[in-house]
Order: sequence, then C-alpha cells, then structure tokens
Amino acid sequence: MNKSLQSAAEDLVKRAAHEKLTIITAESCTTGMLATLLSEARGAAKILHGGFVTYTKEHKHVALGVPEELLRAKSAVCEEVACAMAQGALARSTADLAAAITGVAGPEPDEDGNPVGRVYIAAARRGGKVDCFRKDYGAIGRDAVREAAMADAIAALKRLI
Amino acid sequence: MNKSLQSAAEDLVKRAAHEKLTIITAESCTTGMLATLLSEARGAAKILHGGFVTYTKEHKHVALGVPEELLRAKSAVCEEVACAMAQGALARSTADLAAAITGVAGPEPDEDGNPVGRVYIAAARRGGKVDCFRKDYGAIGRDAVREAAMADAIAALKRLI
Repeated sequence: MNKSLQSAAEDLVKRAAHEKLTIITAESCTTGMLATLLSEARGAAKILHGGFVTYTKEHKHVALGVPEELLRAKSAVCEEVACAMAQGALARSTADLAAAITGVAGPEPDEDGNPVGRVYIAAARRGGKVDCFRKDYGAIGRDAVREAAMADAIAALKRLI
Repeated sequence: MNKSLQSAAEDLVKRAAHEKLTIITAESCTTGMLATLLSEARGAAKILHGGFVTYTKEHKHVALGVPEELLRAKSAVCEEVACAMAQGALARSTADLAAAITGVAGPEPDEDGNPVGRVYIAAARRGGKVDCFRKDYGAIGRDAVREAAMADAIAALKRLI
C-alpha cells in the first residue's frame, strides 16, 4: 500500500475522531481494501464500524438494499448505485459517515461493458447530503485503479467532516 | 500476500465453482482481507458474493445479528460469536458457504483482555453444519496472525465442500 494513501487514511481517522464521527464502507471493486486501509490507521478502533463488501449485484441488493431494477437497468457501475450503496451502508449500520466505491478495476471491462478504470464514488453523512461522482482512471492497472479510488473516497469523506 | 495463501484461495474458488457453491465472508480482525484474497482468485466473480466487515461489537450486532448479550458476556473473541457471525452472514446473503474470523491480530491484547494471536474461526454451509474452532497463533506479528487465520478459514471452507 502506498505511503500517501496511508497518510490520507491516518488524517481522515484523526479528523473523524476529533469530531466524534464514525465510518462505514460499502465496497465493490475494492473488495474490503478501504476498510482494511482505514483499520490500519492509529485510533481506527474507535471510529471504524466496518464495511460491506458487495461484489455481486445480488449482494448489493441483499446486503445494502440497492434496487434490483436499478442494477438491471443501469448496471452496477453508475452514480445511482454508488449513492444507494452509501445510503444503504448508513441504513444498515449506526455509523455517521459512509463511503461507497463501485467500478471496474480491470484487467477486463465488466459484464455490462463498463470500461476499465471507470469508478463511481459516493460519500454520505447521516441526515446530510450525499456526494457522488465519476472517475475515469483508465487502464492504469488493477491495483492503481483501486488505490486511486480509495484516495478519492477518503478525500470525499474528509469533505463531509 | 504470501503465495501459499494465494494458491489455497485459488484452490477453494476452483472447488466451490465445480460444486456451484457461492461464498460470503464475515470478518473482524482481518477487516476484509479474506474477501480481497478470494476476489483475486481466477473465477471469483462467479462464486464470491462479498463479505461483512464487522470491526466493532456494535456492527457485529447490527450487520450480522450477533446477540448483544453474548458480546457483552463473552467478548467478541469466542466460539459463539464466530458461529453467530458465520450464520448471520448466511442469513443476510444468499451465499451457500460462509467463513467468519474474529480474534486479536495485535500488537496489543483487545479491550477485553483476549491475548494477541487468539482467533476463532467458523465455517458454515447453508442448511448444514457449522464448524467452529479456536487457534492460538501467539504474538507472531499482526500480518502473520491474519494470514494464518485466513489459511485456516479457507481450509475450513474446503472441508464443507
């Protein structure tokens, strides 16, 4: 894991702890790596509730309540699904902040033809707004796509604090 | 990640795929690393639903239905909690097999005084039995404890196939 990502995680956990805000993740293409990254930061035990790893469309629906019609109509890689994942993670936990990541790490495009490197990220605060955006990192490699997505998710969470 | 762990994950995914069995994880001290490890295996997209990362006692209760009284009375590191996590993961997904890991990676004992390296692992098959056991890996280092626990969880899943 690269050092700047670790520092970003440390900084997020420090800021969240200062405001007494807790965090939950909802991850598809990062498969739990964001939860792992945050758990390694000093003080994480007090602010990280955990996360939902929803690798399949079915588990996005079952574990996070993402509407099946949405997943069918717009695939799992779209703004609405990222938003629904973040909101579902808040609804199915007691955390204050949620970050969701859904995208195509590669090396192949996904089953619905979404290109490698396309990732949607959402950050939500309980009772507050949801910030959702698309990133096209390109075919920079599986690990690089996931690290870039985690960095952007951490930055999005910081903006909500 | 060590090579033998990757081979074990590849072998598990291959065997599960052969029997058309799907997998879900429920992780505490491994914080999503088992889901990540399995997701890297060839063919994982067809058999891995995802996982639940339940870092706090509260999220073990909220996300997996582990009884609060049990967590209070026996801490999060005990056989009953590991079993309840695996069964909760099956109840809150549509996967066929679940593996749960709860323990103390270190470097410090946990808040309830459970020693570093103590890990409970459970593997469950839908409609079938739950295999739950304790491992005391000792203070071999945070990463080594987690890798050993993942290896044992994978072995336990294989025994259920």
